[in-house]
Parts: sequence; C-alpha cells; structure tokens
Amino acid sequence: MYTALMSTSERLIESTRELLWERGYVGTSPKAILERAGAGQGSMYHHFKGKPDLALTAIRRTAEELRAAAERALGGPGTPYERIVAYLRRERAVLRGCPIGRLTMDPDVMANDELRAPVDETLTWIRDRIAGIVEEGKAQGQFAPELDGGEIGAAVLATVQGGYVLARAAGSPAAFDTAVSGLLTLLAPRTA
Amino acid sequence: MYTALMSTSERLIESTRELLWERGYVGTSPKAILERAGAGQGSMYHHFKGKPDLALTAIRRTAEELRAAAERALGGPGTPYERIVAYLRRERAVLRGCPIGRLTMDPDVMANDELRAPVDETLTWIRDRIAGIVEEGKAQGQFAPELDGGEIGAAVLATVQGGYVLARAAGSPAAFDTAVSGLLTLLAPRTA
Repeated sequence: MYTALMSTSERLIESTRELLWERGYVGTSPKAILERAGAGQGSMYHHFKGKPDLALTAIRRTAEELRAAAERALGGPGTPYERIVAYLRRERAVLRGCPIGRLTMDPDVMANDELRAPVDETLTWIRDRIAGIVEEGKAQGQFAPELDGGEIGAAVLATVQGGYVLARAAGSPAAFDTAVSGLLTLLAPRTA
Repeated sequence: MYTALMSTSERLIESTRELLWERGYVGTSPKAILERAGAGQGSMYHHFKGKPDLALTAIRRTAEELRAAAERALGGPGTPYERIVAYLRRERAVLRGCPIGRLTMDPDVMANDELRAPVDETLTWIRDRIAGIVEEGKAQGQFAPELDGGEIGAAVLATVQGGYVLARAAGSPAAFDTAVSGLLTLLAPRTA
C-alpha cells in the first residue's frame, strides 16, 4: 500500500501493482493509474517511458516479493515434505489470485517478451526450488525414487495456480484448500 | 469458427467467444466484436440486450463444449486411472489457455454472478466427474483408500488450470505436460 508521503514515482508504481493484480494489464488504463496514484497527467511520462515501462517496474517488484514469500516457506525449517506443506499452506489472499500468474492470461503481457520475462523467471524459480527440495527428500528416502523433481515441482506450482482459478470461480477460498489437500495426500511420504 | 453463411447473431456469438478467449471480457469491446463479426453498429442491440447478455450466451456455449470434451475423455474406455490419463493428456490448445478458466482472472466476470455461474458450474462439474472416477478406482482397489475423490478431483483440475499458466508463462506447451506428468506419477496405481 502507498501513502501520501511517497514520491510520485513510488505512488505510480504501487498503484500500477494494485491495478495489474485487480484488472490485469489490458484492463489498466494510464488514466486509472494516475487517478489511483493521485498524480498529474504528465507525471507518468516524466518518470517512465510509458505504460509498458511503468508496468515492467511494477511487475519486477511484485515478482521479487512473490519469490521472497515462497522462499520464507520453502527455505524454512522441517523435512522436505513439511517445507512443501508450508509453501502450499502459507497465508494467501486466495480470492485475489496470484499477482504474477494472472498476468499469463493477459494477451498484451504475453505478446511482450520484456513483460513476460519476469513472470516466466519467477514461476521457473519457484518450480526449480521445489524440484530441489523433492530431490532432497528422495535422497533422504522420504519421497519415492521414481519421482522427478522437476515434474513434481511443476505439479505443485500448477496446483497453486489452478487452485486460484477454482477458488475464484467458486467465490470461495475453500476450493483452493481442497486442491492443495488432494496434492498433499498424493505427495505424503509413504512411510508416514 | 464462423463463416459468412452464418446469421448475424451467430457471427456475434462466435466472435465474442473468440475474443473472450483471446483477450478476456475486460479486453473485449463491443466495437471489436462488431468488427470481427462483420456486423453493423446496431446489430448487437438488435439481437442481445448488450455486451453482458451476448457474453453470457457465448460463455454458456463455450462451457458446454468444454464439458463435452472433458466427458469424451473421462467417459471413455479404460480403468479409472486410464480415463484420468486420457483427460489430462487430451489434445489441447495449451498456449491459448482454458477458455473458461481464464475468465476467473477477469474482474468484470467475477463481479457479475450471472457471468460467473457457468464458469463455476463447468469447473465444479468436471471436478465432481473426476471425483466419481477416483471413487470407482478406490472401490476397484486401484487407488489407495485414503484418497478423497473430491480432493483428488480438485487437484487434477487445478493441475490442468495451473498447467496453462506455466505453459503461457514459458511460451511453450511443454510446461503443461511436465506438471501433468508429475501429477500422474503421484496418482499412479501403487500396484502398477
């Protein structure tokens, strides 16, 4: 969130982040950004080259935060399985959806390699982080040797991203939790 | 796809379906619909009450098609596991994403209960259909008794929806297949 004490460029970035999360890139007009930021007409072009440049700054910041939030769970204490549980069960604004994942539904973001790059990099980073944890769990005998870290990492991340879709469709966060519970039952260490 | 032989109202519905899939509701203007349909200015209000009414007709038709495509795989031959494999591996335009799931990222669809209803009903129907197949598999001893049909159904559907997100982010359908492979390894009958 932003306050009146922030600089104009900060207010522009933070309003863009909020609007991208709520309405996506296609649904976010420069006018709406300026209004929410309480900034004057010329200010966007004073601080940024235009909407794509401002959006790129906003997306990069959101991507960094998402990665940090994932790392707090995935890099926390516990067994490999417990760390994946912590990631899947971490507090989320489920009905708002993923501020990074939702951008993949935005045709103008997907058509722009520069805007797509932080989206792809962030999701790839999380998937690979989970993949490494699965490999740790295999080495410790917690997970079956036939599991492929990369595949399980992708399935875990897909369940999160798809869980948002189910929850938003249902208008209830419970649908997210149900999908996560299903995946965790399947992933549960066989010796438990 | 539509042809010049179609009636104006059909052309309006089919163009709206395409545009909703490509650009979402927020990104689809009445002007763009009319242009793609090759229809005159007043024709939308002649055949429909407005954009929401036309979109509802379009979404309902897309929902019916999606349900039928899911049923072709889920109601096909084979064991419960094989039918879930058939559903997950069925031919998809992965990089286009799910024409129903993507609507959940659309704030104007989510804010309108009438537009959201066919989205929720379709996803719930597919989830419940998979849940029933998981219960069949449990009864046949193919799946472990601790699996909950509803949870596994949600996890399977979430993997599909999230798989689209990962594939679009990466700009490659392979990311979808990787997530699906991970889930299928986890779900594979233990006696296999």
